[in-house]
Amino acid sequence: MSDPDLLSPPDTSSSSVITPVRWDGAAPVIIDQRALPAQLVELRLDSVDAVVDAIESMAVRGAPAIGIAGAYGMVLGLRNAASDTVAAAHRALHELAARISVARPTAVNLSTGVERVRRAGQAVDTSPADIISAALRTALAIHAEDAAACERIGAAGAALLGGRRRILTHCHTGRLATGGDGTALAVIYALHAAGRLDEVLVSETRPLLQGARLTAWELGAAGVPYRLLVDAAAGSALAQGLVDAVIVGCDRVARNGDTANKIGTHALAVLARHHGVPFYVAGPLTSFDPATATGDQIVIEERPADEVRGFGASRTAPDDAPVWNPAFDVTPAGLIDGFITDAGVLHPPFAEAVVRPVTPPSVRA
Amino acid sequence: MSDPDLLSPPDTSSSSVITPVRWDGAAPVIIDQRALPAQLVELRLDSVDAVVDAIESMAVRGAPAIGIAGAYGMVLGLRNAASDTVAAAHRALHELAARISVARPTAVNLSTGVERVRRAGQAVDTSPADIISAALRTALAIHAEDAAACERIGAAGAALLGGRRRILTHCHTGRLATGGDGTALAVIYALHAAGRLDEVLVSETRPLLQGARLTAWELGAAGVPYRLLVDAAAGSALAQGLVDAVIVGCDRVARNGDTANKIGTHALAVLARHHGVPFYVAGPLTSFDPATATGDQIVIEERPADEVRGFGASRTAPDDAPVWNPAFDVTPAGLIDGFITDAGVLHPPFAEAVVRPVTPPSVRA
Repeated sequence: MSDPDLLSPPDTSSSSVITPVRWDGAAPVIIDQRALPAQLVELRLDSVDAVVDAIESMAVRGAPAIGIAGAYGMVLGLRNAASDTVAAAHRALHELAARISVARPTAVNLSTGVERVRRAGQAVDTSPADIISAALRTALAIHAEDAAACERIGAAGAALLGGRRRILTHCHTGRLATGGDGTALAVIYALHAAGRLDEVLVSETRPLLQGARLTAWELGAAGVPYRLLVDAAAGSALAQGLVDAVIVGCDRVARNGDTANKIGTHALAVLARHHGVPFYVAGPLTSFDPATATGDQIVIEERPADEVRGFGASRTAPDDAPVWNPAFDVTPAGLIDGFITDAGVLHPPFAEAVVRPVTPPSVRA
Repeated sequence: MSDPDLLSPPDTSSSSVITPVRWDGAAPVIIDQRALPAQLVELRLDSVDAVVDAIESMAVRGAPAIGIAGAYGMVLGLRNAASDTVAAAHRALHELAARISVARPTAVNLSTGVERVRRAGQAVDTSPADIISAALRTALAIHAEDAAACERIGAAGAALLGGRRRILTHCHTGRLATGGDGTALAVIYALHAAGRLDEVLVSETRPLLQGARLTAWELGAAGVPYRLLVDAAAGSALAQGLVDAVIVGCDRVARNGDTANKIGTHALAVLARHHGVPFYVAGPLTSFDPATATGDQIVIEERPADEVRGFGASRTAPDDAPVWNPAFDVTPAGLIDGFITDAGVLHPPFAEAVVRPVTPPSVRA
């Protein structure tokens, strides 16, 4: 059970500047993504309420990053509970998992991350301190596994894309969203590192502008050439032959390959197919959910009307404007030309055996 | 030459609440569209400088509305010139036309409206007062003709749409942009008046948010049920079966039917076709350009990067973010199921004879 390496933060040398979530020894510290690109601000989350609020308010966002934040939130909650007995610690684990896992409904990583930590703690019955240690080991492992998964995704995508040098991407899927280089952006970083990238076209991704605020900022910081465009211009970019491939991330992939991702993804897949451009989904196996047979079973979060009525302090629509604000859509598997994963390029159906996350034996509780 | 009806303002009974430009007996009065939706402010334009500034700054916008404002600006300038002789009034007409017609060079309605008023005044040589009367008659006729064209577009569209009760539209094409009910929105108003409309889905139309700022406000003011959505959600609305027809306006229609319109229009046409929803373009014959053979000949304006780097008053992307910001795109004719015009529902090719504007003989100079 003792593997000292797992008690250290994961190696983030390839993305040392940008670490969206880290464990500082006693609590999770996040980059407040709401303040970007104007300011780079770190927030120390001292309570479970603060963790839940950070996830709900999207101070931390990106399916893998919220999985990591949720896992660290479990450890924080256990520590703050200061349970006297094993039974009390087990009860605390149960309550914490229920609270944290519902902070956002669509991404599978949050509930699976929280559940892994819960089970790891539940399996220990020696002392409350040992339960906390097991929980922390598991949370750190989730973080380290995600960093490794990002690296494998980048390598698999760069190999797949061959000479496709102009990439359109949507939303934000990079270092700020994961424990490593990201998912779709990991492929882009790998292409760039290999000298095989000409340009990234970044759609701004209304309503929360993750493309404009986060992807543009992150690519600029990394020296990767890009241009920003409004979401409605992506179809024109495809029509004008400015794009060799579209790569997006994923929040949840059903067994048949239907994929939930940021609103606008389905439209990009239709447009890419219409214009003869390949469309790829990149993500770790932890985002694959074989328990969900098809996209019809994926719950799509509807977010507040005010996100569409304006942005930040700018109110642009009428105060009482009725709004339809789905945060995600589901792209049918038939429009997706391949899934770039940490286990290579895959195609559906995704059997349970294929997509079970690879967990190092040392961190199994 | 004497037609007393033409000296009265056009009948705007169907749009009496919202009149983007009107002649108050001595000067044009506009709704300042920059202040919407926060405030409904009228501006009386007492000088030609004020008229030019209102057009340049988009206080008044929408190609037909700009044409009407420019025509009234000619009359105002003539009155303010207070010419003593016919020759002086003719010189004033010439100078005014040169000043006003360049306020926005791309809007064809501005130069054609100004030119019609100039010619009407030039053809009169009895007295300066008669020249002013002729100019005013022509300006009022331009306004009245546009209102009538909107009404015919609305009637033609409502007849075409039959039982299609849920309409998706893009950008702003309504009362604020024209002398009457608008183009695509005229169809929507006609359906609503006939009790045959369930809902309008309004895409916000980044970067300048004409959907959120103007269409949402205008439909709300008229009691037309609508919901606002981000541009990237339009594909989902189509995929989920929330839309029975898509109707958009047009900036220029080529002879073969290729149509330049607000960025995002082409993508909507592709998505509508993919999901089996009819896609219509609505516009007056004055927007059809038989001198342009195909969309390839239409030059697409690229607008400033800062429109995409920010949102309203907020800067949201990095200050130095490279941007691609085409204002329009060209939808191939093959994706358009019909053109709803003031001469009924048309299909390409559009010969010159078909699309020559209908001008009442009484206002011909």
